[in-house]
Amino acid sequence: MAVSLGLEDVFIKYTGLTFIDGNAGVLRYRGYDINDLVQNTGFEEVCYLMTNGELPNSQQLAEFKKSVKEHYKLPDHVMELISDLPREADTLTMMETAFASLSSGDYQWNKENDRKQVPKILGENLGIISNIYRHKMGMGLQNPDPKYDYAEAFLRNCFGNADEKKISAMNAALVIYVDHEVPASTTAALVASSTLSDMYSCITAATAALKGPLHGGAAEAAYKQLLDIGNVDNVENWFKTNILDGKRRLMGFGHRVYRTYDPRMKIFKKLATTLEQTDEQKKLFEIAVKLEELGVKEFGGKGIYPNTDYYSGIVFNEIGFPIYMFTTLFGFSRVLGWLSHITEYVEEEERLIRPRAVYTGPDKRDFVKIQDRK
Amino acid sequence: MAVSLGLEDVFIKYTGLTFIDGNAGVLRYRGYDINDLVQNTGFEEVCYLMTNGELPNSQQLAEFKKSVKEHYKLPDHVMELISDLPREADTLTMMETAFASLSSGDYQWNKENDRKQVPKILGENLGIISNIYRHKMGMGLQNPDPKYDYAEAFLRNCFGNADEKKISAMNAALVIYVDHEVPASTTAALVASSTLSDMYSCITAATAALKGPLHGGAAEAAYKQLLDIGNVDNVENWFKTNILDGKRRLMGFGHRVYRTYDPRMKIFKKLATTLEQTDEQKKLFEIAVKLEELGVKEFGGKGIYPNTDYYSGIVFNEIGFPIYMFTTLFGFSRVLGWLSHITEYVEEEERLIRPRAVYTGPDKRDFVKIQDRK
Repeated sequence: MAVSLGLEDVFIKYTGLTFIDGNAGVLRYRGYDINDLVQNTGFEEVCYLMTNGELPNSQQLAEFKKSVKEHYKLPDHVMELISDLPREADTLTMMETAFASLSSGDYQWNKENDRKQVPKILGENLGIISNIYRHKMGMGLQNPDPKYDYAEAFLRNCFGNADEKKISAMNAALVIYVDHEVPASTTAALVASSTLSDMYSCITAATAALKGPLHGGAAEAAYKQLLDIGNVDNVENWFKTNILDGKRRLMGFGHRVYRTYDPRMKIFKKLATTLEQTDEQKKLFEIAVKLEELGVKEFGGKGIYPNTDYYSGIVFNEIGFPIYMFTTLFGFSRVLGWLSHITEYVEEEERLIRPRAVYTGPDKRDFVKIQDRK
Repeated sequence: MAVSLGLEDVFIKYTGLTFIDGNAGVLRYRGYDINDLVQNTGFEEVCYLMTNGELPNSQQLAEFKKSVKEHYKLPDHVMELISDLPREADTLTMMETAFASLSSGDYQWNKENDRKQVPKILGENLGIISNIYRHKMGMGLQNPDPKYDYAEAFLRNCFGNADEKKISAMNAALVIYVDHEVPASTTAALVASSTLSDMYSCITAATAALKGPLHGGAAEAAYKQLLDIGNVDNVENWFKTNILDGKRRLMGFGHRVYRTYDPRMKIFKKLATTLEQTDEQKKLFEIAVKLEELGVKEFGGKGIYPNTDYYSGIVFNEIGFPIYMFTTLFGFSRVLGWLSHITEYVEEEERLIRPRAVYTGPDKRDFVKIQDRK
């Protein structure tokens, strides 16, 4: 009996959501290229597409937006609970706790219920993530303003204002991180959904998995690497000392699926230069470009290229977010991907996920009473 | 590319923890038969066994108990947070939320850290589950008394007192539910641990999966079935109408692994008669015995027998717990199994769990702007 370590060669489900060609560097949602979607849609339009399979017409989009906005407001107990968490807690801990507190034990899965849950949870998601930021910053908690669409309402609830460029970049980041087939977080959500647990619990399980440094932490690690290098003149020396000679891992490089440039990384790279940059941000971007060049020269031949997290931290920072929000912003968008995968799984191929383990422990042992043990 | 639906034929890890022979009805932890462990050990002894691979001697057990007791007391913010949750919330929602709130983003996995975490988390687990009960009952929250061992401290913190028979039954129930290889909840914990997420987040993910009616809800469903039948004279008629003719599923029967009597069920059946029974409890037990007889006669030939959850609800109720606590009591014990599996996985074969999906959606589609959509 062979163990499928990391489930690497195992197909866990069928999906009509996301197509990835790792060799060609192609990513599509429901058949639409990620570049087309980033350029032409807002986040809510992609939410509708993922949930319903088709892009909405104007009326459908307006109705969908309305039903999301109706749920920007969080239940009081969730607001209280976020306030009760120690401010020094991790933002993903806060996200995990808030979603857990919204869960309930008696969710009935069926297509009609499920379609109503999606805009509701997306609305609450906005309230949760923006208030996590407010709580971390020591600001009072407040509900997002339903006058604004998703990306703008989010930025306004965090910063009190939002300009067009930042709204556009936030929208793009939200669309980019929506889904990526079945990474660990999505797998955790699927496992929970396979017992017919409720959607909030599935998101909680996914967040618990996203939190690990081998999954969601990459954007943060890649950004810290740039800070560590500190100066563009130091890139070559740092690369030689740490990566070539020191055998440290180059953060933000390499992906289990892509063997070439991650198409999402290219979008983030471009976004980084469309936003206004402080001198410090300009410097970090220059370091990143130089490091990318060295990394691709060294590792490109082995199919190791920069991934989506390589430039995303720079973009998040230019929008206005500190490092501790990066992974949570990834989760903020990915909630949609998790919801899309679990509804697809439960509606189309529901089967309790229950693998086996290969037993390698001791054979039957006779029990020895405690007084007779050495 | 074939999908391994439910991961049914997939081996996700090696394990030295739990051995199951589904045909012979055998269950062993670390080589020791479940019957030997239930008869001869307390829960802490099994905790030590699972964590360290060997049964403890008296001194080792005393030290282990001490380190668990040091953590009976919950951090204040967790107490506040449990109080903030609506009393009508599901007890598993409360468990999920409380564990999520204890998680942190910077846990460093290594053997020494991990061994210290286990007694700490077990201690906190006692504080969480007993206070969930207190919150549901409208009692003020309070920390368990470290004068008492685990099962006794738990019952005392719930009920204010505990007699020997109930302590013994609680200990047995705790030992029985400790581990059962890799069901969905444990799989969710493994997926989270594979990203090197912290232990609390892994427990949160597992609880999220346990909550689904296809996993943790069986004891509750089996018990409600007895209430539904209502009277021992009604069993035959109910069985014919609902199961034989009505094709309803017989709850508490059948298991993905066992093809004969679940050894844990036999222990619970015996426990049910060693505890004092009210007239109502006696009646439910008689209904259960009669229904077992009919069920085995009908389905035994197909390898469908009563499972561990068939009598466990009766035992939990005789100890003093209402139905809404049954699944959470399962989780209360299983926390140990989850911890044992994730430490084993991370320490021995760490590999990010990242399966694939088979894409069945549309081919590349040209983007259509919203004003041009029908």
